[in-house]
Amino acid sequence: MRIDVAFTPGEPPDASVAIVIDVLRATTTITHALGQGYERVLACAGLDRARELRTRLGDGTMLAGERGCVRPEGFDFGNSPREFAEGDPRGSTLVLTTTNGTRAIVAAAAHADTVLVGSLANLTACAATAARTARQAKGDVLVQCAGVVGQFAIDDAYAAGRFVSELRVWLAEWEPSDAAQAAEAIAAGFSSAAEGLGASQSARNLRAADLADDVRYCAREGVLDVVPTVGDVDGDVALITG
Amino acid sequence: MRIDVAFTPGEPPDASVAIVIDVLRATTTITHALGQGYERVLACAGLDRARELRTRLGDGTMLAGERGCVRPEGFDFGNSPREFAEGDPRGSTLVLTTTNGTRAIVAAAAHADTVLVGSLANLTACAATAARTARQAKGDVLVQCAGVVGQFAIDDAYAAGRFVSELRVWLAEWEPSDAAQAAEAIAAGFSSAAEGLGASQSARNLRAADLADDVRYCAREGVLDVVPTVGDVDGDVALITG
Repeated sequence: MRIDVAFTPGEPPDASVAIVIDVLRATTTITHALGQGYERVLACAGLDRARELRTRLGDGTMLAGERGCVRPEGFDFGNSPREFAEGDPRGSTLVLTTTNGTRAIVAAAAHADTVLVGSLANLTACAATAARTARQAKGDVLVQCAGVVGQFAIDDAYAAGRFVSELRVWLAEWEPSDAAQAAEAIAAGFSSAAEGLGASQSARNLRAADLADDVRYCAREGVLDVVPTVGDVDGDVALITG
Repeated sequence: MRIDVAFTPGEPPDASVAIVIDVLRATTTITHALGQGYERVLACAGLDRARELRTRLGDGTMLAGERGCVRPEGFDFGNSPREFAEGDPRGSTLVLTTTNGTRAIVAAAAHADTVLVGSLANLTACAATAARTARQAKGDVLVQCAGVVGQFAIDDAYAAGRFVSELRVWLAEWEPSDAAQAAEAIAAGFSSAAEGLGASQSARNLRAADLADDVRYCAREGVLDVVPTVGDVDGDVALITG
């Protein structure tokens, strides 16, 4: 059995369990929203699709997302995990539009029996659940990076490397693939998570949008025990529960 | 201007100069064959295509390649750079079948003005030529890894990281992409080139085929001044000269 990493969502290998990572910021936001008390998150790619879902689902449905780091008009929230940090949730369902994250979740769901949503925030809990599930199924674990527009993103690769290291605690006899070894080396090349995420183009974009606080916030490791799990995937909409 | 790395040959970004790497073993073998005195290498994907090329080109054409690390029947050579290390060449043209390497060369040629063939063997010379060409063209440099069957390979990623470090000597003001930074971190994670290449699945396959010597041989850095350059690409056949 193997611990594997896919740095881009192109054509992932089959796995028993996949952990999808879009650490700046979608999967961190999903983790925090479920941690705050939302019952479910619907991740979808398009803005119009998100608006349509809110209209259809009605009361108790909040709308979150971004285009160019910024909250779209008429949305309740942007895509910052800090918006889901404190207080009670304002609804029971969060519709979140995220292009890269949704693409990676949909790709992973087609190739894995169980799909979890990972971030540094839930590193410890998510890796433990993934390892337990893979051991029971006697199958491979894949850490699936979202990347940016199909291309490699070092923030996701950093987080993937942290997940590989954590998974190896539980699955010491699983073989790490070439990409898993590489992800670990990438993570080890930075002295902190903030430095690793901060080196990315995504972090530069956030800093330019005056959202540097989000980079720091997404770099916090193991602060939540929530393990978001992907249920139904319908086209480009994925249902995620805690 | 950017220094970029593509870990797999999927859809490379446009660049002024691309350096294609299949360090275990195709691009190392190409470098050594031209270094030994072959006038040209024709890299092609299929076995039948390779045999057909030799028949068409006639005298002075040698046939090299592998399937499962081993020399195919009727071929003059396998795909070991050690076969092109000493003595005079046995011909003027070498036809080399290599699936991953050819795929990466063909992909790169569609997206870059100049395509060079890189290996650790010609690291210094190839990086210098790439940097000079990119500076004159005021364009990006892409290090294109061949990978294995479209998937990430840590041997190529290691070599790509060494190329990024070398390119940054010449192009200090070029911006390294996320993937370029990651490749450097991967290379820095190993204490030697032999260790970096040796960690790969490709190296395990070579050791299983009693070809561990090739791993060691391909890990030698900067031993040749040859800079193989891709000329015409016709379908899945690429013409390479020194």
